[in-house]
Amino acid sequence: MAEEYDFRVASLGDATIPSPIKMSPTHGNHLAGYVHDDERILYAIHVRPRDNAHTPSSAEMLEIAGPRGELFFDPSHTSVGIVSCGGLCPGINDVIRSSVRSLWYLYGVRRIIGIRNGYKGLLPENRFEHIPLDPEVVDDIQQVGGTILGTSRGGGERTAEIVDTIERLNLSILLTIGGDGTGKGAVAIAEELERRGDKVAVVGIPKTIDNDLSFIQRSFGFETAVARAGEAVSSAHSEAHSTVNGIGLVKLMGRESGFIAAHTALAVNEANFVLIPEVPFDLDGPNGLLVHLQRRLESANHAVIIVAEGAGQHLLKELGEEDASGNQVLADIGGYLKSNIQTYFDALGIEINLKYIDPSYMIRSATADASDAFYCSRLGSDAVHAAMAGKTKLLVGLVNDCYVYVPTRLAVAHRKHVDPEGSLWRDVLIATRQPEVMTNG
Amino acid sequence: MAEEYDFRVASLGDATIPSPIKMSPTHGNHLAGYVHDDERILYAIHVRPRDNAHTPSSAEMLEIAGPRGELFFDPSHTSVGIVSCGGLCPGINDVIRSSVRSLWYLYGVRRIIGIRNGYKGLLPENRFEHIPLDPEVVDDIQQVGGTILGTSRGGGERTAEIVDTIERLNLSILLTIGGDGTGKGAVAIAEELERRGDKVAVVGIPKTIDNDLSFIQRSFGFETAVARAGEAVSSAHSEAHSTVNGIGLVKLMGRESGFIAAHTALAVNEANFVLIPEVPFDLDGPNGLLVHLQRRLESANHAVIIVAEGAGQHLLKELGEEDASGNQVLADIGGYLKSNIQTYFDALGIEINLKYIDPSYMIRSATADASDAFYCSRLGSDAVHAAMAGKTKLLVGLVNDCYVYVPTRLAVAHRKHVDPEGSLWRDVLIATRQPEVMTNG
Amino acid sequence: MAEEYDFRVASLGDATIPSPIKMSPTHGNHLAGYVHDDERILYAIHVRPRDNAHTPSSAEMLEIAGPRGELFFDPSHTSVGIVSCGGLCPGINDVIRSSVRSLWYLYGVRRIIGIRNGYKGLLPENRFEHIPLDPEVVDDIQQVGGTILGTSRGGGERTAEIVDTIERLNLSILLTIGGDGTGKGAVAIAEELERRGDKVAVVGIPKTIDNDLSFIQRSFGFETAVARAGEAVSSAHSEAHSTVNGIGLVKLMGRESGFIAAHTALAVNEANFVLIPEVPFDLDGPNGLLVHLQRRLESANHAVIIVAEGAGQHLLKELGEEDASGNQVLADIGGYLKSNIQTYFDALGIEINLKYIDPSYMIRSATADASDAFYCSRLGSDAVHAAMAGKTKLLVGLVNDCYVYVPTRLAVAHRKHVDPEGSLWRDVLIATRQPEVMTNG
Amino acid sequence: MAEEYDFRVASLGDATIPSPIKMSPTHGNHLAGYVHDDERILYAIHVRPRDNAHTPSSAEMLEIAGPRGELFFDPSHTSVGIVSCGGLCPGINDVIRSSVRSLWYLYGVRRIIGIRNGYKGLLPENRFEHIPLDPEVVDDIQQVGGTILGTSRGGGERTAEIVDTIERLNLSILLTIGGDGTGKGAVAIAEELERRGDKVAVVGIPKTIDNDLSFIQRSFGFETAVARAGEAVSSAHSEAHSTVNGIGLVKLMGRESGFIAAHTALAVNEANFVLIPEVPFDLDGPNGLLVHLQRRLESANHAVIIVAEGAGQHLLKELGEEDASGNQVLADIGGYLKSNIQTYFDALGIEINLKYIDPSYMIRSATADASDAFYCSRLGSDAVHAAMAGKTKLLVGLVNDCYVYVPTRLAVAHRKHVDPEGSLWRDVLIATRQPEVMTNG
Repeated sequence: MAEEYDFRVASLGDATIPSPIKMSPTHGNHLAGYVHDDERILYAIHVRPRDNAHTPSSAEMLEIAGPRGELFFDPSHTSVGIVSCGGLCPGINDVIRSSVRSLWYLYGVRRIIGIRNGYKGLLPENRFEHIPLDPEVVDDIQQVGGTILGTSRGGGERTAEIVDTIERLNLSILLTIGGDGTGKGAVAIAEELERRGDKVAVVGIPKTIDNDLSFIQRSFGFETAVARAGEAVSSAHSEAHSTVNGIGLVKLMGRESGFIAAHTALAVNEANFVLIPEVPFDLDGPNGLLVHLQRRLESANHAVIIVAEGAGQHLLKELGEEDASGNQVLADIGGYLKSNIQTYFDALGIEINLKYIDPSYMIRSATADASDAFYCSRLGSDAVHAAMAGKTKLLVGLVNDCYVYVPTRLAVAHRKHVDPEGSLWRDVLIATRQPEVMTNG
Repeated sequence: MAEEYDFRVASLGDATIPSPIKMSPTHGNHLAGYVHDDERILYAIHVRPRDNAHTPSSAEMLEIAGPRGELFFDPSHTSVGIVSCGGLCPGINDVIRSSVRSLWYLYGVRRIIGIRNGYKGLLPENRFEHIPLDPEVVDDIQQVGGTILGTSRGGGERTAEIVDTIERLNLSILLTIGGDGTGKGAVAIAEELERRGDKVAVVGIPKTIDNDLSFIQRSFGFETAVARAGEAVSSAHSEAHSTVNGIGLVKLMGRESGFIAAHTALAVNEANFVLIPEVPFDLDGPNGLLVHLQRRLESANHAVIIVAEGAGQHLLKELGEEDASGNQVLADIGGYLKSNIQTYFDALGIEINLKYIDPSYMIRSATADASDAFYCSRLGSDAVHAAMAGKTKLLVGLVNDCYVYVPTRLAVAHRKHVDPEGSLWRDVLIATRQPEVMTNG
Repeated sequence: MAEEYDFRVASLGDATIPSPIKMSPTHGNHLAGYVHDDERILYAIHVRPRDNAHTPSSAEMLEIAGPRGELFFDPSHTSVGIVSCGGLCPGINDVIRSSVRSLWYLYGVRRIIGIRNGYKGLLPENRFEHIPLDPEVVDDIQQVGGTILGTSRGGGERTAEIVDTIERLNLSILLTIGGDGTGKGAVAIAEELERRGDKVAVVGIPKTIDNDLSFIQRSFGFETAVARAGEAVSSAHSEAHSTVNGIGLVKLMGRESGFIAAHTALAVNEANFVLIPEVPFDLDGPNGLLVHLQRRLESANHAVIIVAEGAGQHLLKELGEEDASGNQVLADIGGYLKSNIQTYFDALGIEINLKYIDPSYMIRSATADASDAFYCSRLGSDAVHAAMAGKTKLLVGLVNDCYVYVPTRLAVAHRKHVDPEGSLWRDVLIATRQPEVMTNG
Repeated sequence: MAEEYDFRVASLGDATIPSPIKMSPTHGNHLAGYVHDDERILYAIHVRPRDNAHTPSSAEMLEIAGPRGELFFDPSHTSVGIVSCGGLCPGINDVIRSSVRSLWYLYGVRRIIGIRNGYKGLLPENRFEHIPLDPEVVDDIQQVGGTILGTSRGGGERTAEIVDTIERLNLSILLTIGGDGTGKGAVAIAEELERRGDKVAVVGIPKTIDNDLSFIQRSFGFETAVARAGEAVSSAHSEAHSTVNGIGLVKLMGRESGFIAAHTALAVNEANFVLIPEVPFDLDGPNGLLVHLQRRLESANHAVIIVAEGAGQHLLKELGEEDASGNQVLADIGGYLKSNIQTYFDALGIEINLKYIDPSYMIRSATADASDAFYCSRLGSDAVHAAMAGKTKLLVGLVNDCYVYVPTRLAVAHRKHVDPEGSLWRDVLIATRQPEVMTNG
């Protein structure tokens, strides 16, 4: 437990305007109250007592989310822009809805605009019409998947132009719903705003269906994604189980982290092999996947394989399928596995029935399940609370099961990965009974 | 309404054994009773009164399904085999369950065996273990997709060997769950059994997820398939709606008939183009799909396309992708559309976001929805009633909303198609507002 | 098959205005076409060939639904009111949506108003604001249960006042979504309009969650209701199965007809007793329900009972719980059974665990499943087609699996009942294995 | 953060038998490894840095769950009993399945028995047949609600007799799935076993649909319960929204804690009033519920109320409906509210349409959603790991989002409550916009 992180949250200045939310200023009277800026939670909680205990400093603790008693912005003069970026994820509309309702009903903010189609909607050449948002507009939007604002990838790197637009729109607050790239863009935008002396709070609600943002226990939409993915795995299992040597192969999201694959395997418990980016595997050789798959068929007549889209990329690179422009474009491990498995058993003269399922778009466009709806509802409010208090360059998230504010730069600095030595992967190995190592050393 | 069909059902001989089911032999006493062999329903009911009315003969009417007062087989000496063939379809386990329960509880039949993996399980070289079936074995099987018996394609053409196995298993009844090919196989098997003087009833429960069997109003699993397909189309719509020039392309089942595509379009009402095998279309040219798609994007910014797997095969044949061995292998219209749409808009310099969804296996492996569960429950019983009464070479089905027995040879003689001049397709055109004709001819 | 019914549909006058829907006027060119007024289907199709065949006259056949080539109303001067009455039922919003879209897109009608809260919204004292309807207003309404128009019971008997309002609103068409009472009201309204010489088409889409309208094969929302009811029965079964002498008692809708109860029992196959209004039963005595229930517990340790709300009313009347004003108010059979079962086993010193589930409101407020969505979509269009062609005093419905127009007065003259001698009830008895007779008479 | 809790876990003795699970004994080699007994997590993580920091001792930290390298029991001589007690909750079968699979596949334990119907199954007079459990028996049980073992309330107080049975069954491990009362029973049983010198590990998996166990972040089944409850609230909303002055009243579980009510309100966001046991309210008076409800109807025409079953008990006690035997029997707040609301508006001459929904049994008997299935899967394994290592008198649970072992006595000492000053209730007030105080005091 070495001192590592500085979790202090940036601020636009002193918050001096009394909050219009009527809450109890004192504790102990059984009435809900404001959160104080110095309320924190510990981040590093996993210890071995015999270790030399390090007492964490205040900077190493996370600021607790929630409404503050004093605001930086005067609600009656506050303009808010909301933008959603990147791929779809269940719950975006829930977050938009909660943000709008919190701004409108709690703070009385009346100027809220939806930016169309991601950061691109803030670029000068894309004069998409902005959408005025109010509680009526967002009333039932959570019943529909996707995002009513539209989304797109990229655009965030054109910082100056975006800040020009923010100035022209006279925004006080920019709420960004997006992942890694969106967060990096948000930090750049916030810094450019600072440079220009613009008092604009840039607050993010982290969106990554892969659940791979550091310091965020669980990203919204993740549990829904696992639920929908589980249905695909059950389908694969039904298909595999109902034929001779049936193999169900399901490709799930997970470009760099195998959280969806791992959680799905434990939720459904019908997968025999789970392949994730964090754990390399060989296809061929005496300890490769194919031999183990063959053994599984011999003993049980069917098999189910979950593969995260980022798994086994080393196998594809060997084939020269690497992309010129770097790591953005992943080769298709699903198709690669499908054809290699077929070839392998064809060569052995063994008839197999391989069914390949790629449910990605059906997962991404799903509406949020109850637990994600609950989560989005709270994330949206907490993002608004932070922004109204003048906090900036932060993400709202759940850490150690508390809602906190995390400096954006920390969350996007590194990806979160499934720890091959941790309890999640251990329980996947236990549930699938797949070999811990499938390389030939 | 010309006289066309002979709906008379074949029989193994006189049914003389009193049924063990206690029912009322008379009508009018408010107690459920047996069905009599001469109870019929009219088949051709669509008329224009000014036409010269043709009075249908008894042979042109359909025999009503249900328990008969007299049986051909003595339940205590009856052995039954159940086999499921072809691709998966929601409800197979429901049919198996209902058949077993009816045999066991109603008739007291105690020897029921499940044949493994389709007709192949009746071939000498495939000595799969047969599964003894009783109410306990089938208790909860409807909660799981697929078929507990396993399935496979083909094998039915080796009639003599199959009949050998049927003789060795000493079956009195063979219940087949399958489609077109299975039905043809069943007729051949029944005829070979006849030739050998074996008194075996061969009764089918029609299974075709495409709903393309003639004389069958609706095949089991079809409504579930439409429900699941609708979820895929909603996903495609959410994806399309959430991006700039989003196009959702969903490939659905439908090798020769577009019923799933048409029903799904009407159930979900979010598709802008529905492409089915029965209605040809061009891709290019002033009245081709691509131009109409472009227009749709210009006016609405997004579009959803449903394509049945058998649609537009003529386009693919032109490309030489035809298969040597004939019509079994369909070229992939989904991939073809995907790449051609992308190429078209790339050439125009228009950025599109195309998301392609193929939910087929997730649909096929679903469990049956309530209405299909209800239907399967009744189909299973009615198949058993027919077989116990010594009827053979027939399918159980719904015609004009009545449960009837249809001679198998009639049902498999021709595919049922969506009538381009009928009300279903008309309502699809109305709902999608797609051009009635998308050819340049 | 005696001549009984006159299915001829009333009309406001000659339809002479060419339809704006572009359809093919001829048959045989593979293009969807108009329906002609003399296209009919046979109603009575169940025959015993040896019977003296009666050749039905044209009046005994049902007019086929669909777009006509000529209209009575000029779309550019047509005003339409839509009203929903009575209890909730899955699919009302789907019907509203389909009607509005058909009027707007197909016929170009631009003045469509939603009447608030049933017939009461047409009464002078209830000056609810009417809702202007267009495709945007109804865009996603099918994703929400209930009715966006609101509904209420009654009001239809104040015919003159309603017609006053219709005149003041200058309506050409009144689309009514409702059941028995609504239909009777609609006929009275249409007759009063006729008397006054007002050319207003009154067309109904039948709504009865109980599926108890004569001449209507299946009312919309019914399949969804069965699906949701099935979930309640599964819950009851899980509860019953998980305790000692567990009894799951589920009360379902069905005031006068037991269709939901019967269908649910066959869809889920976990009920041991199904009690419906059409089949009387005793509670006590050697052949009463309680003795049979006790026997079931002795042999299987748990039991599931489905009771339709209108079942066993004779038992409650004996208790003097009858209502003064007649048959409208049903005594609560669910609570009655619950307490009597408990008392019976308490007296015997047998511990039971009875769980009573009444899912009615959760069923009524559900959104429509795919098959009902499909059905509603077509009913809405077909109602519009009829009204635009000047047809009136009719309901759209499915008969012998064809979409037809049924004179309203016929459909509301008698309730449709489960025939205790028919195949549906027979298959329920078979599935539940409950005694056919549970009276001591 | 005063020193309060002693989280040390009891043990039967030294664990010296090497685990048959092949795991990596060292860290840092990217291979999953055993958990060491001294790995801990901090419990109290919410701090205000200016407070006098208390450095928690080892006893105040929680032991991390997972497989140990050394076992107390020799798997080949280990007998395990599994018992489920109390009310149903989604996921019981998932826990049973995971426990059995872990015992069988990981440790090679072959003698696993299911105790029937709760603690009562261990009483001498209830000689229910025990169920031998193996992976095949539990294969698909998670697809069915309830518990395959059956359950009952009570019985646990007859400690000596239960221990007699445990001795006669020669159990090494007793896994208990139950709540508060079950936990107290388990501690008593474990202590009696200790007294007799029996080396039996008693390990619990906490089951409380109310989520009211202390030190347990979230009990299994809770998220599923919230999801199903949300459907009931949506139904209530559809009903309320579709009529004049519609009021939807939903009673949810929550005898002493309002977690389900609060979470559901945030997940669905359609409730206007949430009533929980922790926050008292008046019905009458100028600041009572009824006045606020009237105001809501005046402004919005409909209202939705969620009431936890334990809310407002003080109101019922005033009515003398208190139970002689103490707090076990709650008066029915749902029926009480229903009739009082009706009476109030009747007296005012305001027509309302109140629909009352009690979905409790449908929630309790549901199958587990994916996130609960995932959770149950891990709880089951972790319970087995603890027991095999000889740990006893503990519950497996999630604390600060880590899987840990909590001494049972601590978890059952006090209920967990919704903190009226905490962030959950604050966000409920924000979402519903209900008055923070609805008493007249």
